[in-house]
Formats: sequence, structure tokens, C-alpha cells
Amino acid sequence: MARKLPAALVTRLLQEGLGPRAIVEHLRVHEGVEVSPQAISTFRKRHTTVPAQHSTRRVIPWEVRPEHRSSTYRRAVLAFHRRAEGRTLTGEERRNLDHVERTLRETGQVITYHPDEGWLLVPARPGIDTGIVREPEAAMTDQAVHATTMHPTTPQHGAAAAGAAAAAGQVEAAGTRLDPWFGAYAQRAHGMRASEIRALFSVANRPEVVSLAGGMPFIQGLPLEVIGEAMRRLITTKGATALQYGSGQGDEELRERILEVVALEGITDAHPDDVVVTTGSQQALDLVTRIFVDPGDLILAEAPSYVGALGVFRSYEAEVAHIEMDAEGLIPEALERTLVEARAAGKTVKFLYTIPNYHNPAGVTLSLDRRHQVLEICRRFGVLVVEDNPYGLLGFDREPLPAMRAFDNEGVLYLGSFSKTFAPGYRVGWVIAPHAVREKLVLASESSILSPSNASQMAITTYLETCDWKGQIKAYRELYRERRDAMIGALSEHLPSATWNVPDGGFYVWVGLPEGLDARSMLPRAVTERVAYVPGTAFFYDGQGADHMRLSFCYPTPERIREGVRRLSGVVNAEADLVQLFGTHAERDEDPRDAEYPSPDLA
Amino acid sequence: MARKLPAALVTRLLQEGLGPRAIVEHLRVHEGVEVSPQAISTFRKRHTTVPAQHSTRRVIPWEVRPEHRSSTYRRAVLAFHRRAEGRTLTGEERRNLDHVERTLRETGQVITYHPDEGWLLVPARPGIDTGIVREPEAAMTDQAVHATTMHPTTPQHGAAAAGAAAAAGQVEAAGTRLDPWFGAYAQRAHGMRASEIRALFSVANRPEVVSLAGGMPFIQGLPLEVIGEAMRRLITTKGATALQYGSGQGDEELRERILEVVALEGITDAHPDDVVVTTGSQQALDLVTRIFVDPGDLILAEAPSYVGALGVFRSYEAEVAHIEMDAEGLIPEALERTLVEARAAGKTVKFLYTIPNYHNPAGVTLSLDRRHQVLEICRRFGVLVVEDNPYGLLGFDREPLPAMRAFDNEGVLYLGSFSKTFAPGYRVGWVIAPHAVREKLVLASESSILSPSNASQMAITTYLETCDWKGQIKAYRELYRERRDAMIGALSEHLPSATWNVPDGGFYVWVGLPEGLDARSMLPRAVTERVAYVPGTAFFYDGQGADHMRLSFCYPTPERIREGVRRLSGVVNAEADLVQLFGTHAERDEDPRDAEYPSPDLA
Repeated sequence: MARKLPAALVTRLLQEGLGPRAIVEHLRVHEGVEVSPQAISTFRKRHTTVPAQHSTRRVIPWEVRPEHRSSTYRRAVLAFHRRAEGRTLTGEERRNLDHVERTLRETGQVITYHPDEGWLLVPARPGIDTGIVREPEAAMTDQAVHATTMHPTTPQHGAAAAGAAAAAGQVEAAGTRLDPWFGAYAQRAHGMRASEIRALFSVANRPEVVSLAGGMPFIQGLPLEVIGEAMRRLITTKGATALQYGSGQGDEELRERILEVVALEGITDAHPDDVVVTTGSQQALDLVTRIFVDPGDLILAEAPSYVGALGVFRSYEAEVAHIEMDAEGLIPEALERTLVEARAAGKTVKFLYTIPNYHNPAGVTLSLDRRHQVLEICRRFGVLVVEDNPYGLLGFDREPLPAMRAFDNEGVLYLGSFSKTFAPGYRVGWVIAPHAVREKLVLASESSILSPSNASQMAITTYLETCDWKGQIKAYRELYRERRDAMIGALSEHLPSATWNVPDGGFYVWVGLPEGLDARSMLPRAVTERVAYVPGTAFFYDGQGADHMRLSFCYPTPERIREGVRRLSGVVNAEADLVQLFGTHAERDEDPRDAEYPSPDLA
Repeated sequence: MARKLPAALVTRLLQEGLGPRAIVEHLRVHEGVEVSPQAISTFRKRHTTVPAQHSTRRVIPWEVRPEHRSSTYRRAVLAFHRRAEGRTLTGEERRNLDHVERTLRETGQVITYHPDEGWLLVPARPGIDTGIVREPEAAMTDQAVHATTMHPTTPQHGAAAAGAAAAAGQVEAAGTRLDPWFGAYAQRAHGMRASEIRALFSVANRPEVVSLAGGMPFIQGLPLEVIGEAMRRLITTKGATALQYGSGQGDEELRERILEVVALEGITDAHPDDVVVTTGSQQALDLVTRIFVDPGDLILAEAPSYVGALGVFRSYEAEVAHIEMDAEGLIPEALERTLVEARAAGKTVKFLYTIPNYHNPAGVTLSLDRRHQVLEICRRFGVLVVEDNPYGLLGFDREPLPAMRAFDNEGVLYLGSFSKTFAPGYRVGWVIAPHAVREKLVLASESSILSPSNASQMAITTYLETCDWKGQIKAYRELYRERRDAMIGALSEHLPSATWNVPDGGFYVWVGLPEGLDARSMLPRAVTERVAYVPGTAFFYDGQGADHMRLSFCYPTPERIREGVRRLSGVVNAEADLVQLFGTHAERDEDPRDAEYPSPDLA
């Protein structure tokens, strides 16, 4: 086993101009260390302060900001150029370039760069964008990039944007080349951009890749013939209602049915009027944040927390403070400490966002004692609790704990969903809220979508009426338990160097990587090895989490899960060898804005 | 015919303490004027500076702000009290009280008041709220109302709100009695409240009322058997996809189909990638506003404009400048003038929102020449055009004009919908947008709902594939033309004193009332006479429009339309008599925030 190398030596050798092979030789002879050229290449790519051996300005005609230097796309563009010059690529460079080229080919896109937005994929213009990078326009010289005046792609557009853009200077000026409306966006839209992870997932969805990334339920288990026939009857007998606009608050019959569902978790004092039906519980999250959160307000959330919630909070320009968890869920003392600190700092805390059951992504469940403690603390500090509970009925070993809402009908907004217990395709979720809040939620929802789909709502009601939905949930529980077992077994067998919890419900295992590994930078390699996961950084607001990944066991079969973990172990072990050699560490994400926006792939 | 009375005389007589009957007598004897006691009562209710003859503080224990004095609910509470004291009510008072009591009974609600929110309906607490008004709690004395400290209903809640509430003083302090989270809402939620119009519409939806208010298409015309069978096949053969999460941008097959639809209006250069599917075009409006508009930004919209769009703009705290229209639609010179003024005032104009075809509510269509002029002006000023086109294919007399998007693919965001040409129950609309904008729309939509309903999208695709959708649109055009004719005929016959346009497509007629009539204050009387409409104030951002009403001819049969207009004429004529007598005039809405939030009733 090779001993760890101080990074400084390799850096110095690289700076002296030695190539990977020469360095390997140097290390073998002078230091007694065996290391592969690929390891040196990888090291060089990670340490971007080392100047490349060729001028990137010829290849990448944009001023690339330091925080965008480590992009997969930038590396691909450089490798593309090196290959075009007839130079040899490292295995790592070749794999990365192969992967990116495949993505571009399959999506008909090319790479471009925007100083404010980072590396982007844009549709290839036939006959113009022939390489992998969008050729800058003739006018786009260094001088133009540095000019403070605007030269929009379409000169007649974008004048409204001129005020903001002129003030902001060169960055926006460059931006307008790509988007005539660049300077016209709202403040809240500035952080909205697709991260690299999305491009990777577009590849990860191919059949040969085992995706341990998504939160898609295993729909194939549903009685489709029965549901189909019920849908026929619904339209033929109640079509004039199902196809019409509905109430903004949602169909009353469904709201009554929802009360039967939540009664299973101890919510027995709610009235159908307390329920607002939403387009999936994602819309409920959006509406709650919309009516409560001003820019700069603080939201408390578990560490880690649901990527889709963090995306919503970000889109309303909230701040998020993460609260530590352990095997029993959110730690009440940590919550109280954060509230005291927030108060001392003069911060307005708008609510605690919590997923008490089979947490996404952490897999843990808040104990009964702690439910009371958390409610007591929030009451004492006057903080609303937003209880997000899509998985509560999907426990493997026991009946559900009472919902927090069961103990407090004024201090808790309860979010539920049919997406995990039935099917996400109808997009039906709900909120249970105290009267005054509910009224604002309805108004906000009507402003947003007028009314939830009557057809979808009545489809759910029909399903609940005509199918054995409790039996279906039981079947799901057994199905997912088997998959959980397959995943835990495979982790024990193939990834003993990692750490994980054993969830007793839900869809996810939260895996701690061996020390020094970075789940985010490892992802492209994993996808190349035909396995996908979600890097832990997606579940934090502040760039933490690179040392974890979320593995989901809901969708692939047990065999595929085992195969996926086996592939993953190959990637992890190769990374771990590198880390052991060089002693590098997973670092906080350089650009926290890169944390994911929610996407259906990550639900 | 009685001559007009200066309001001052009646005011003075009322102030001298004369009752309606005494005033009638006084006028007959001293002024030679014949007038009914009801007319005096109505006058008194309208002129709220006249002190009532009994102390309202006994009956209404809240400090009622001046702008809330004219509420239907306040009048009902006073009348309720008068009746309880054994005093005689005027016909007007009795009708109003009857109407309100019926609403409360049917909805299980009681009236309450919030200084910042106005008059509200809240659920009656069994055994506690026995009258029509929520009895204030024991602690809620005048002193408590005036205190600046908080006494939340639930003492343990609401502390987070304390900062804001304490600063804002008594008003919020009173507010927390009703809503423990009152001080916790976001700035944007402050204007969110249900107006009186909503409560009226809950009655207007009863079968005996002819509603000329809604924008519901006539679904009964659809081949429900065929659609039902297609839905069965969809679920049984493609259920595993239809019931699963979909793409955030929308199903690709549907996006291709949508291009076939928009090709009918001359949009032939769009790619499926340019299309973003939304939960009705209402969500498209929400997303566009979300990504472009910061609080205080200016949006231009026709005068009048779609109530649902104005609600969205309000929820993002935009300002709106209305642009005049005439029979050919938006007047280009007025647009240019407003843009010049906005620029001079240093305002940031984010976009022009326009409904070029069969305008909602104005019924007019932007001429071809003007489409070019408007686009040219917007290009010159660098202003984006948001083209909202739900009715474009529903012309009665001719093929559709080319969409504005057909002439400009970078400066126009095109919003479309299946709600009016097929069915609103699936909630499927779309945006066609330039690349960079589209990317942000997808991210915003994923943040808001993860993905549009696959089941709904595939239902639409199935409908487009298996049914004669173009034939259906043709059938709709004929159906709505017949109804338009019925409405115009009835207006000519029954309401010759009003003015209106004759729309050649769409759903709406924009009716100007005889001088001095106020469509908003007349609405409760109309509902009492079993006919409903939308007052013109709903279609302006600034309280204009009381002199107009929107009548829709889409949903009721021709016979019902004629009956509705006949009933309406009774109400209008009675009002006109009063106005002729007293010379009152329709006034700008006292509280522009009362302008409607969109609701499915007004779609």
C-alpha cells in the first residue's frame, strides 16, 4: 500500500513542468512511492491553481471565474482541444470527454459559458456549432467582454434590461450575448440555473444505468386494468364535472377522503374545510413559503433536508439554518440552540421545516418523545412547524407514529401526498392548515393555478373508493422492505468502508463515504460506470454534504440494486485509493448556489 | 319623473335625525318630489359619513376602518341587530340581511372583522357563534384592542410574529386574536384576502341563479363516452408512465402536438424544446411573473385586463399601468405614450401583458396592423410581450389572425391553453419561450410543482390523437356564436340604456352601464334577483371599472342567457331610477386592494 503523499510535492513537480509519467518516475525513484499516471492527472485537475501546460485562452474564449474552474465541461473543452491537437489524453480525461460528448450528442447540445451562470448546455445551431463548444460570435472579443455597454444578440431587444446591466458591468454585458432578456429577470431568478447534476441525470436515466438517484415509486405494482376501467366510468358518468374548472381549495369529496387517510396517523380533529388540495405536495411547499417568507427570512430545516424544499426556499430568497439530526431524528437541543442564536442575531424565523417520518434523505424517524419536545420548543419560540409527511404510511416494521399535527392543530401545517402511497402522475397532495392560513393558501393557489385538476382529484377519489388502497400500501411496504434489505445487504458486502443507517421505512439510505471522498466530483465517474446517486451537497443549503450520498431503493428491483451498489463500490474504491495516496479531502462546495433545484429526477 | 335631488339636502335631513318616512314626507311637501323610503335608505347606506341612529359600538365591537364602512357584512350585522331590537328593516336592509344569512347558513360561517383584512367569514364554532357575528372573546375589550402588546388566541403561539406586530401596533394586535400567525406572513401575502365578491359567488353558483359571471366552457358538448374509453386505454396500456413523475418541461409527445395547435395561428418556427407545459396557462402567468418581476416593477396591461393576471401581478407586488383599447384592441399610441412616461419616471417596465384575441373581458381583437405596430414599439423600447391567447381559435366569423409570436420569436412569450378549446379539468396550458427564458421557466416550474401531471398531459395527447379536436373546436365556435347572438339580442331588447360591443369570438361582452350606476355595489341586488356578473372593477388594478360589467355567454344556454339579461335589466333599471333621482355616480373603488384575486369562478 502506498503511503500518503503531501500534495505540495506533486504540486511543485507539476509547476516545474513535469508530465504525469515523469512525476510517476520521480516518485518511484526518489520517494519510493508507486503511483499511476492517472492519479497524477486527477490530482492536477483537482488543483486548479496549477497552470495548465497550454493556454486555455485559445480554447476557452471567455473569462472563466475561479469558482467555475473545476467544471466537468471546462475539463471536457480542454480535453477536446488537446485531442484535436493530437496530444494523448489521460484515462480520466478521455472518460470525462467521452461522457460529455455522449451527453451532448444525445441531447443535441453544445457547451457554453456565462460568467454569472456558470457552464451551460445550449442547443447546437445546425451548421454553426460543430464542435462541443458554442463558438463565440465575431464581436465577442476580449474587448467586447470587458466593455460595459451592451451589444445584445438581437439589438432591438433588451433595452429594458440596460439599466441593470449597465450598472452591473461586464458580466451582464457578456451575458446578454446568450439571452436578450438577461438583465430583465427578477432578483429571485438569478440563482435559477440548471446544475451539472442535471446534465448527468439526463444520461443516468438511460436503461443501462442503475439509478439509485430518483424517488420514483414502483408504479408497476398497481392494478392498472382496474384503475383504467374506473377512469372510463369516471369520465363517462361524471365527465361534465371532471373536465370542468373546480374549486380553488379542492374537491370536497376528496378532502373528506383525505381525512380518512390522515386518521391513520392520528389526525382525527380536522375538518374537510381545513384541507387545501395542491398539485403535489411540492406546490404546498411553494404556497406555504410564498405566503410566509420574505427575502432574508430564516427557515429551519434538518441537516440534511429535502432538495425540493431547499429549492423552493432558495427561490423565495430565504436563508436556511440546518439543525443536526441523529438516529432519532432532529435533535431538540440543537433546535433550541439555533432558535436562541437566531433570536440573538435578530433573525426572523418563519418556520421549522421537518420530515418526521423516514426522512428524505436521511432515512431516520423522529421519535415520539422528540415530537412533543420539538412542538414544545416551537410553541415557546412562536415558530410554525411545517410537517412534510409523504412517507409516513410506508413503514416496514410498525404502524405509523402519530403525526405532529395530531398533537397541535394551530402550530402545525401538515403536508401530505398521494405520490408515494399511490401514484405521482396525478400530482395530488394537500395541506392541513389552521383557518386563517388555509384561506391565504387557497388565494395563493388560485393565483398560481386557479384550481387543482378536477380530473386528477376525482381520479384519486375514484381510486380510494374502488380499489383496496390500504392493501396497496401494505403491498408497497413489503416491496420496499425487500428492496431496503437488498440495498443494506449489498452495502455490507461491497462497501464496508462506508457508513449508513438502516431505515425502517420510506425510500432512502444516507451513505457516508470513506474519509476524503467527494460525492459530487465522483458522480461523473459513477455515471460512466453506469450507476447514479444524488450527492449529499444537494441536501444542504450551504455546500455541505460532499461526504455523503443518497441512495434510493424504491424503483430498481433487488437484483438491480445489488448490481448498482456493486458498480458503485468499484467507483468508491478507486477514489479511495487516490485519496489514500494523496490525502485530499472532500471540500465544501465552492459555489453553494450549485446546490440543486428540485427536479422530478430527485423527487 | 322626479327631478334630481342634491344629495346635500337628504344628508342634512338625515343628520337632523329624520327617518326615511319623514324625509319622504318632507320632500313631497317642501320640494314637490316623490321618492320611496327605500331610496332614502339606500342613500343613507351609501353615504356612510351620516351617523347611524344607533351606536354601532354596541353591535360591532371592533374599530372599523373608514374604508370598510360600506361593507355588505357590516350592513348585515347592523340590520341583524336592529331586527333583534324589534325595529323595522327597510326592504333593502331585509334583502341584504336575508342574503347574508343564507350565505352564512349554507357555508356554516359567521362574520368577523379584521382591521387590516376587512370583513371576513370564518367557520362558526358550534355552541359559541350563535348569531351571525363571531362573538369577541372576553379579553377583547376596547382596551385590549388598543394595547400594543400581543395577546394571541393561543398564547404559546405567535411569538415570532411579535417583532412585526409590536411595531405595527394595535391593528396587528387585534389581528392576532383571529390568526395566531397574523404577523408572520410575507409582505406579498398582505393583500391576499377574499373579497366580498367571492362570498356572493358562492351563492351565485346555485342552480336558480343565472350566472353570466364565469368563464367555464360548455363541457357538455364533448363526446364523453369516447374520451372515457380513451382514458381507460391510456391507463391500461401506458399506466406505468401516466401515473409516474414526468419531465419538468412537460411530455415531449404533447409538446409536439401543441406545435400542431399553434400552427393554426401561424406559429410554424417553434421546436418542441421551446414549449413548457404548465398547470393551466394560469401557472404560465405565475411563472413568467415569478422569473421577471421584482416588487415595484411595472407591467403594462390593457384597460381592462384579465382578473387572473392582475391577481398574479399583485401577488408579486408589481405595479400595473393600463393601456387604453378601442374596437381594434390595444391602442399603439397609448402604449408608446405610457412607455415614454414610464421611462421618464425611471420605472422598470418588465413586459406588456396582452390578450390579442377576443379579449377577456373586453371582447375585442387586436387588428393585424396593430400587432405589427405593438411589436415594433415593444422592440424599440426593449420590452417583452407576453401574449395570452386562450380564445384565439374560438372566432365566430373568420379564421384566426396570426399570433404575435408568429412574427417575433425572441420578443414574445406565447401562452396557450386547452381549457377553452377542449376542457379545463385537466389543467393543461403552455408557454412558448426563447431558449434562455424557457430554461428559467422550467426551473421555476419544477420548484413550484416538480412536474406537470403526466396523467393529464397524456389524456390531452390521447384526446388530440383519437378525437376530432378540430371538429370539436368548430362545434364550439357555432355553439358560442349562438349564445353570443342570444346575449346581444337580449341586451338590445332589455338593456337599451347600456352600451356594449359585439365580440366576434371568445366568451365575453363588456357592458357599459347607464351613467352613475356602480356595478360593484349593484351586485348583491343582482344576486338577490338571481343573476350574476363580474363587476368591471375586477379587471382594473386601480379601482376603475365600476361603470362596466363583464357578461359571459359561454356556459348558460341561450334561453338562460335571455332570462339572465332580463333579470339584470330589472336590477339595472331600478338602480338607474335611483341614480336619476339622486344624481349619484359610480365612484372609484375605495379600496383598490379589493380588486379580485383570480378564482376559478372568474376564469
